[in-house]
Amino acid sequence: MAQQIYIVGIGPGAEEMMTAQALSALDASDVIVGYPVYLELLGERFNGKEFLSTPMKQEVERCRMCFEEAKKGKTVSLICSGDAGVYGLASLMYELGVEYPDCEPVVIPGITAACSGAAVLGAPLNHDFCLISLSDLLTPWETIEKRLIAAAEGDFVIAIYNPASRQRPDHLKKACDILLTKLDKTRACGYVENIGRQGTAAYVCTLGELRETQVNMFTTVYIGNSLTEIIDGKLVTKRGYQI
Amino acid sequence: MAQQIYIVGIGPGAEEMMTAQALSALDASDVIVGYPVYLELLGERFNGKEFLSTPMKQEVERCRMCFEEAKKGKTVSLICSGDAGVYGLASLMYELGVEYPDCEPVVIPGITAACSGAAVLGAPLNHDFCLISLSDLLTPWETIEKRLIAAAEGDFVIAIYNPASRQRPDHLKKACDILLTKLDKTRACGYVENIGRQGTAAYVCTLGELRETQVNMFTTVYIGNSLTEIIDGKLVTKRGYQI
Repeated sequence: MAQQIYIVGIGPGAEEMMTAQALSALDASDVIVGYPVYLELLGERFNGKEFLSTPMKQEVERCRMCFEEAKKGKTVSLICSGDAGVYGLASLMYELGVEYPDCEPVVIPGITAACSGAAVLGAPLNHDFCLISLSDLLTPWETIEKRLIAAAEGDFVIAIYNPASRQRPDHLKKACDILLTKLDKTRACGYVENIGRQGTAAYVCTLGELRETQVNMFTTVYIGNSLTEIIDGKLVTKRGYQI
Repeated sequence: MAQQIYIVGIGPGAEEMMTAQALSALDASDVIVGYPVYLELLGERFNGKEFLSTPMKQEVERCRMCFEEAKKGKTVSLICSGDAGVYGLASLMYELGVEYPDCEPVVIPGITAACSGAAVLGAPLNHDFCLISLSDLLTPWETIEKRLIAAAEGDFVIAIYNPASRQRPDHLKKACDILLTKLDKTRACGYVENIGRQGTAAYVCTLGELRETQVNMFTTVYIGNSLTEIIDGKLVTKRGYQI
């Protein structure tokens, strides 16, 4: 039987926001592999486990490490923040998996930032929505631009991941300018910093105000659809119930 | 201080796929309100709690029930399957909340079907994606159609909720026909039945084959983007890593 490798979504980081299934997988593991920042989020419960990591941009090496450790007979978990299948390493594990027929990647879902952040803001994702990452490390900017326009034309709520980084501080402003060609500047928006970690902060604003806002890489941004409103300070997308 | 009402996403249903935060909220509650099918998913752990429900299409009454119980001084949780903020009752609770200034809705996120189903299929959502519900109970079909076209034009992966029901058995076929005006019939797709419950089953297929498939209301459907492939029976959307 193939040796299973768990690809575990740990949610925002706090143990109380992981599923019991995720915790069981980590408990059962000899080795936990992950990006250093995420390994640090794991609590005392996992003291004594072997922790392995690679730096940013060495995701292929990090995944190969999982297969190599599993081949030694160890039980291995690869952790990703949020959900391992949402901008995480699940797909890369399946791509590499063809080289390791004795190993079987198994994805254990977690709460992705779109959902954990939405809960802090209110209910912005309560109808059809899409997720768009503004990181152009692996995706051409033209593709990102095309998706922003399509999302606006489809009247989707939009959750934006990776709205900024040190290398691209102005991506959110560029994205807002694209959206403003289709949407009014009064469109209801919001953003959440440090979801589920120390210093969680949520803000609601208009699309015009969002354009002038400097966010950091630990921020998830929400652009409402035509039915989204700010109700008592919460960002709420109505579903259409008659009340 | 306002009386908090928990709006709890219970994930697919099994306790091991809830977060500790969700379980704590339910443990702390005197009353658990929900659609009868979801109340039945809760295990023995919650024996002794007061369970209240309303039938389908009485969601407004169900939410009002929460506020009325909270006003009596009881601790109340409203449960929703998946994530309470994704096609759940979170937004309706905020809408009604303005009538109950002494109560404060608090959303506790859960694993939405897009994520739990994706984990069973492999890694279909591993890049920008959108969620579209095919239910036209509260949304005009023209809006759904517009969103399907926008999603295809934006090269999003699409997760489809409510692909069918007894009243609308052919909605998935209609949706596929719309998508086939933009996408090739060989586009990689998949679907999962009864996610996280007894009888979980996952299938991969092409968009052309999906059009001919009769699904039921307990199915979540995935349409890949231009980078989605079927690898060893798993539906995998590549992120662009060079391996």
